[in-house]
Parts: sequence; structure tokens; C-alpha cells
Amino acid sequence: MEDEYKAKGPALSKQVKCRLPRYYRHLKLLLEENILRISSGELAGRMGLTASQVRQDLNCFGGCGQQGYGYNVKHLFTEMAEILGVNEKFRAILVGAGNLGRAMAAGNLFLSRGVELVGIFDRDPAVIGKQVSGRVVYDEGKLEVFCAANRVDVAVLTLTSSEAQAMAERLAALGIRGIWNFTNIELSESVLAAFWPPEAPVGGPSVQNVYLGDSLMQLCLELRSREEKSPAAE
Amino acid sequence: MEDEYKAKGPALSKQVKCRLPRYYRHLKLLLEENILRISSGELAGRMGLTASQVRQDLNCFGGCGQQGYGYNVKHLFTEMAEILGVNEKFRAILVGAGNLGRAMAAGNLFLSRGVELVGIFDRDPAVIGKQVSGRVVYDEGKLEVFCAANRVDVAVLTLTSSEAQAMAERLAALGIRGIWNFTNIELSESVLAAFWPPEAPVGGPSVQNVYLGDSLMQLCLELRSREEKSPAAE
Repeated sequence: MEDEYKAKGPALSKQVKCRLPRYYRHLKLLLEENILRISSGELAGRMGLTASQVRQDLNCFGGCGQQGYGYNVKHLFTEMAEILGVNEKFRAILVGAGNLGRAMAAGNLFLSRGVELVGIFDRDPAVIGKQVSGRVVYDEGKLEVFCAANRVDVAVLTLTSSEAQAMAERLAALGIRGIWNFTNIELSESVLAAFWPPEAPVGGPSVQNVYLGDSLMQLCLELRSREEKSPAAE
Repeated sequence: MEDEYKAKGPALSKQVKCRLPRYYRHLKLLLEENILRISSGELAGRMGLTASQVRQDLNCFGGCGQQGYGYNVKHLFTEMAEILGVNEKFRAILVGAGNLGRAMAAGNLFLSRGVELVGIFDRDPAVIGKQVSGRVVYDEGKLEVFCAANRVDVAVLTLTSSEAQAMAERLAALGIRGIWNFTNIELSESVLAAFWPPEAPVGGPSVQNVYLGDSLMQLCLELRSREEKSPAAE
């Protein structure tokens, strides 16, 4: 299966790639509900897609349903986990042990997706050395030493926005391949690529930005526009 | 200005609507950096857009730059805040006082965007009555009573996924207009609309889904595909 995907991997379109984590999440929920087979129509209904889109997507990575039987949920889930790198055991560090950082360390957000949290860093002397979810918070100044001694694939930025750009550049220079950014700063892959160590094989870190505030404002905007569309309101 | 937007509001395209919170965030960062005027080109550079796209977007809601001067950041920020409903003083409740819920209550995510957190609810007797960021956690069973006595615009779902659908239906029946969903469940606006109280003026709650796990998996997928593209790796 590994080889099969390796051949197909780079051919996945951007749209399909965006939907893969959604499939993974839904298949996981199905397994939790003990649903072991599902038709493309049912899966589509749960995801707000069309049955033909689901069939087309799942075809892209070799998942095929059987007429009158549907998809084997467990098989599909395993296949999806493989494609998404759940079995790669990516290793992550958290930079910033504030409220959000602590919440993320506490939940099973990482482990349930095959990512291992291997270190939590902060620059506040009041926090360094303290326990967060059973882990000691390390001094941010020791990042370079830590990364030299330990493989780190992903850094999660839960520090303040004003520190984000400099930290991202530092992480890029350390060859960290993935940055999961929760600050308000827009991190650019092309800017960070310039800091990438010359001995590293690929071009720079991948960045995934999560702007929680943007999402809240999007909701507020929606509320406000609906108010305007219904003059009867209030 | 209010009237000006009211006329223009519904005409905003979906794409522009999606970018508005980003503009708001960037303008806020500019003000924090004491940058009081900016050209469309500079703003575009910070946001990864083109200058002409910025000019076009900002034109949509009456913001106009001056040739050779650029945009007045403060003016634009105020205008944007108005459009996004920051001045509406939307009122939110948090449902689920677990790690993520507590982190969100603790930060200034809400207040800095004009949203007031008016209540935190949980169903766990061990948590009810306890303090979270200076607020008492209320019994989830009292939601109906609370919403009858207090205006609530937005509910933030930070409870477990298995409770999400039933809770969203309950919130829809209470006429809550906005649901900010952090669970793994896909909440559908059309499904929830069926629970909307008949006396309410508009068609159902707006839903904004934030799937943190999807975002992490997207990053892992990116890491994995780049590995495959660079056979020299490891």
C-alpha cells in the first residue's frame, strides 16, 4: 500500500488534499459509532458533498467501494491514516506555554493523530521548569541545543504575535519542517525558506496558519449581514 | 458610514467577505506597530495579495487610498470594525469548560474583537460552580433559563464531539444566531435551521466550524508529500 501511494501521492490535486483530513475525521467518527461499512451517498451526506465527488476522491488513492456493499470503513481509515502520515510518528514541540499552549498540550489532539509532543518551550522564567500536563517547560533559549539532540518535525507557535516572526525564522534555521501557527502574524513560506539550513534537503518549512480570531470575525460578519437582510429583526 | 455600509453590505462577494477578517487583523497589527498610513502595495505584500486586489477589495466598502499617500490605517480599521460587527457588542457563551474552553475564556480573543463572554456552561458536576477566569461555570441544564433571561448571540462549542449535535440543536431551538464549533462534528446549517424557533425572524443559526485536527493533518500531509518529492531526504 505504501508503494501504491508513493506512486499516486504527488498526483493528488490541492482540492483533494484539502478534503483528506475531513475524510479521516469522518471515518474516525464512523468507527467510534461502530459503523463498519458506508455507501458513498451516506458518507457524502455526512460531509455535505455529493456521492460522485466522494467516489471520485476515494478513487484518487485507490479506495474502492463495492456495488451494493459500500466502503469498508476500517480499511479506508487505515489507508487514509497512511496517506496523512499518521504512521510517520511526526514529533512536535510547542513554543509558548500560555493558555492555548497548555490547552493543546493537555488534550489528545496530537496523539490521536499520530503526532508526539516531545517538548514545551517558553521564555518566561516564571513558567520555565514548571509542569504542564506532566511535562517540564524548557527554556526557549535551549531550543537550538534541544533540536540538535532530538528530531523535531513540527513546531506549534502558541507564543505572542510580536515574537512569532523571529521565532519562525529561528525554527526555519533549525530545519524544522512544519510550523503550525496560532499567532496573528501571517508567516510566509517563501520568506522562511531563506533561513532554511543549506544542508537540508528540501526547500523550507511548510506553514499552516490558524487564525482563530479571523474565524470568530467571520461568524460575526455573517450575523451582521443576516441582520441586514431581515429588516424585521428585533 | 453605517448607512453607506448598509447599502453596500449584501453586495460583498463571498471572497471579499472571507478576506475582511484578514484585513482587520493586519490593520490591527499595523496600528500596534504605529504605522498610520500604508500603500496598497505594502499592505498587499504583508498579506500575500496583489496591490490591485487590495485596491479592489477596499473599494468594495468605500475605503479609498490617496495617490502618493496611501490608506489611512486608523480610518480603515474603524471602518472595518464597523462592517465586521465589532461595535455590535455580540454576546457569547462557552459550552464546555474543558482545556480548550478554559483557554479561550482566559485570553482576550473575544474582547479584543468586541465580543463579550457572558456565560460558561458545563455538564460535569465537578466543574459546575467552579471559577474559570473569574467566572462561575453554570450548569448546562440551566441553558434555557439563562438564554430566556439574557441575550445570547453566539455559542462556542468546546464540549466533546459526542455531545455536539444535540447541543447545537438545543442552541438552535433557543434562537442562538451563531455557533462557533470546535468539535469534530460537522454541523450543518440546513439541519439546524429545522430547530429554529418559528417566532425568530431569520432562517437559522450561522455555523463556523474550526477543525483544529484537520489543520494539523493538513500540515502532516504536506510534510509527507514533500518527503516524497525529495528522494534525497534522510
